Amino acid sequence: MGKQAIGVVGLAVMGRNLALNIESRGHAVSVYNRSREKTDELIAEYPDKKLVPAFTLEEFVESLEKPRRILLMVKAGEPTDATIASLKPLLEKGDILIDGGNTHFTDTIRRNQELAKAGLHFIGTGVSGGEEGALKGPSIMPGGQRDAYDLVAPILTEIAAKAPDGEPCVAYMGPDGAGHFVKMVHNGIEYGDMQLIAESYAVLKQVAGLSNEELGKVYTEWNQGELDSYLIEITSKIFSKKDEETGKGLVDVILDRAAQKGTGKWTSQNALDLGAPLPLITEAVFARVLSSLKSQRVAASKVLDGPKAKPLGAEREAFIESVRRALYFSKVISYAQGFAQLRAASEEYKWDLDFGTIAKIFRAGCIIRARFLQKITDAYTKDKAIANLLLDPYFRDIASNYQTALREVVVAAINAGVPVPAFASAIAYFDAYRSERLPANLVQAQRDFFGAHTFERVDKPGSFHANWS
Amino acid sequence: MGKQAIGVVGLAVMGRNLALNIESRGHAVSVYNRSREKTDELIAEYPDKKLVPAFTLEEFVESLEKPRRILLMVKAGEPTDATIASLKPLLEKGDILIDGGNTHFTDTIRRNQELAKAGLHFIGTGVSGGEEGALKGPSIMPGGQRDAYDLVAPILTEIAAKAPDGEPCVAYMGPDGAGHFVKMVHNGIEYGDMQLIAESYAVLKQVAGLSNEELGKVYTEWNQGELDSYLIEITSKIFSKKDEETGKGLVDVILDRAAQKGTGKWTSQNALDLGAPLPLITEAVFARVLSSLKSQRVAASKVLDGPKAKPLGAEREAFIESVRRALYFSKVISYAQGFAQLRAASEEYKWDLDFGTIAKIFRAGCIIRARFLQKITDAYTKDKAIANLLLDPYFRDIASNYQTALREVVVAAINAGVPVPAFASAIAYFDAYRSERLPANLVQAQRDFFGAHTFERVDKPGSFHANWS
Repeated sequence: MGKQAIGVVGLAVMGRNLALNIESRGHAVSVYNRSREKTDELIAEYPDKKLVPAFTLEEFVESLEKPRRILLMVKAGEPTDATIASLKPLLEKGDILIDGGNTHFTDTIRRNQELAKAGLHFIGTGVSGGEEGALKGPSIMPGGQRDAYDLVAPILTEIAAKAPDGEPCVAYMGPDGAGHFVKMVHNGIEYGDMQLIAESYAVLKQVAGLSNEELGKVYTEWNQGELDSYLIEITSKIFSKKDEETGKGLVDVILDRAAQKGTGKWTSQNALDLGAPLPLITEAVFARVLSSLKSQRVAASKVLDGPKAKPLGAEREAFIESVRRALYFSKVISYAQGFAQLRAASEEYKWDLDFGTIAKIFRAGCIIRARFLQKITDAYTKDKAIANLLLDPYFRDIASNYQTALREVVVAAINAGVPVPAFASAIAYFDAYRSERLPANLVQAQRDFFGAHTFERVDKPGSFHANWS
Repeated sequence: MGKQAIGVVGLAVMGRNLALNIESRGHAVSVYNRSREKTDELIAEYPDKKLVPAFTLEEFVESLEKPRRILLMVKAGEPTDATIASLKPLLEKGDILIDGGNTHFTDTIRRNQELAKAGLHFIGTGVSGGEEGALKGPSIMPGGQRDAYDLVAPILTEIAAKAPDGEPCVAYMGPDGAGHFVKMVHNGIEYGDMQLIAESYAVLKQVAGLSNEELGKVYTEWNQGELDSYLIEITSKIFSKKDEETGKGLVDVILDRAAQKGTGKWTSQNALDLGAPLPLITEAVFARVLSSLKSQRVAASKVLDGPKAKPLGAEREAFIESVRRALYFSKVISYAQGFAQLRAASEEYKWDLDFGTIAKIFRAGCIIRARFLQKITDAYTKDKAIANLLLDPYFRDIASNYQTALREVVVAAINAGVPVPAFASAIAYFDAYRSERLPANLVQAQRDFFGAHTFERVDKPGSFHANWS
């Protein structure tokens, strides 16, 4: 019996679907799961596919061509460490482990280094696109040894999503944790996008008074233009979905407690470590947390008063366009922050990330896929060293043309008592970033006053301390 | 020769000043420093004080009454671990180590547990007040074994700051890391306070057009009322300080790059871990980071345009009062977030924190000392279980009476292009917290659409998944 070019360990939905995806490109795939049932189920469900089951790790490893290519799709954290520990004694120099799980990049750095000592390659790869993406074509962000990547690149390229121009959404990100890091920031950006859309919804509904039907139309229309993206597309569909039980709009029956799995939190915590300002995504993470305090909010709503929103009249259409502009400009600001974090990480961890390529492989397969990502690729193509996307001519024009709308929408929301933490954070970041002078001089004066922390001067270099008292 | 009731290891400025503070209350103090010079200097400078130098750790330990009380004032992190490791073999069951350094609470939990195995007590204590506070009376936040605390309480009580009503600013916070945790949140709150004051300064200067002299008067006046606090007091003094070289106001000569030592970052990262919304302090941390990107900002200021601030006319006085109200209400919101984080931590780490007492010991000695802390103590005295300070009648009234001013100031700043990330975050938090319904239902719909993450319903319990396509 011939050996397989690749095997998958872990047959929960993501692992299963990736195995099926690989198989659909003409490869036989070895499959293994710790508990036998999942393997049996998969084989029973797809008896005609070239899936080769193994029921021990020995048998699984034995069934693979050398150097072995093993895709790990097990739970992040200890289960991944345990699986690696079981596999390690069975492997030979040059074999390649690929962790496609939702792993924190620092774990990937550690594993990459530990396995390298044994001559084993370790690729940590982000896989975005959910269950369907895994099956039909995800966006893939691999990091690790470059030569190991080259040995798995052909298969990854086959299974990846294809962008509108036909390019596969996979590329080598960089050494050790680079791939999982990029995936983490992708997810943080996803939190930002979703919160911004949620705020646009709140403003359109509570300030402009739009019905679900009108909301569905607005997002459908927005999806034809520069906001064209997967998340806007599904948002437009959400508003036309009826609840089968009550006949109401399903969105109105869904409880307003947003859950999360932690990758947004990781992104914010890392931005704090790097000293890379990421306020918008962080507001989005906190907004989900705050939404989850539902019973507190219900109690607070009965005792804390606020302004009443005044219904809009003839200016409604113009306001809807302002919300669209506010959303697009805020999205630009959020990506500017996220890509600045990628730049800071690239320097800190010495990854030499290619930001234009990252934006490119986000164009299909993943949750944040959007037409506007091409503009980011274009910006980095023009100037690889640009410090912040807001400085690129295209985004600068968006800033110039849309900032009035963003200001208008935030002001309207604040006056109506509608919370828009991400929109408000966006304009604050924009105004701070373009401020030659910020009031941080006062902060430095205070720090020197109470703690003798010293300050710098505007007119000469050095550290100074004043005798304040 | 008699033995001393307490000794201090580490004679940098904080350790030295605490030793002098203890000595000034009538205690002889053993002092030790790893390099002999600092010890010699201290003794030479204060030959008449009851400071008993030791030049080896053996000699130092030998010089102390049992159970030994040893205050560690060494650098946080590895130096603290190294000092503990050197001391440990010299100590006996029941001896008490007190870490007064700037330690992350998770290190304190670890050390407390490790030393407990050897029968040693370990107290991690926050000490706030800077150099002067250490010398004359800091605010002290000790955590660790209760019975060990009782053995050091008399000395800590003597050296602590005294509140206006005469009460010492020290109290047992809770087990293991509780003291260092409270100190961390204190520092996070300090970041928030300083950023809010900086934003009030920016708005008063850039929107209302106040000169330094006028600013000094405004903050002096504010310090007579409900904003009465150490940070407002020093702010008022800062504006009257002239630069000796140029004759300009010193504040205008200070470079606008705010530095930080990391405790604000820790507070935000922990809030993200706990799932406790802390957006305002986090915006303050990011604002410092953004201020440090001075050269990027200067470049951006040349290409990114924005609105011009229009000078205020007759409404200037009213606007100044609005800024005062905005600052006070935002401060209330920041403390509501900080104390909610303390509550979440108390539950997560099983510390049984007494929030009213925490506010009490902040009333003197520390950087955030302020008249309004009494209101927090009062709120928890009335209702220990209150979920959020905004629900307390006093703070609810502030919210009701001052929210219009906060909205007005944020709107004016946004329209003038002046960044107010913390003010804007404050009103967004307030409006979100009092929202019975947030747009998080849309976020849940999206998550279920793309990832089958399920959602809850408003009308019945359970987890649901819709067939969206």
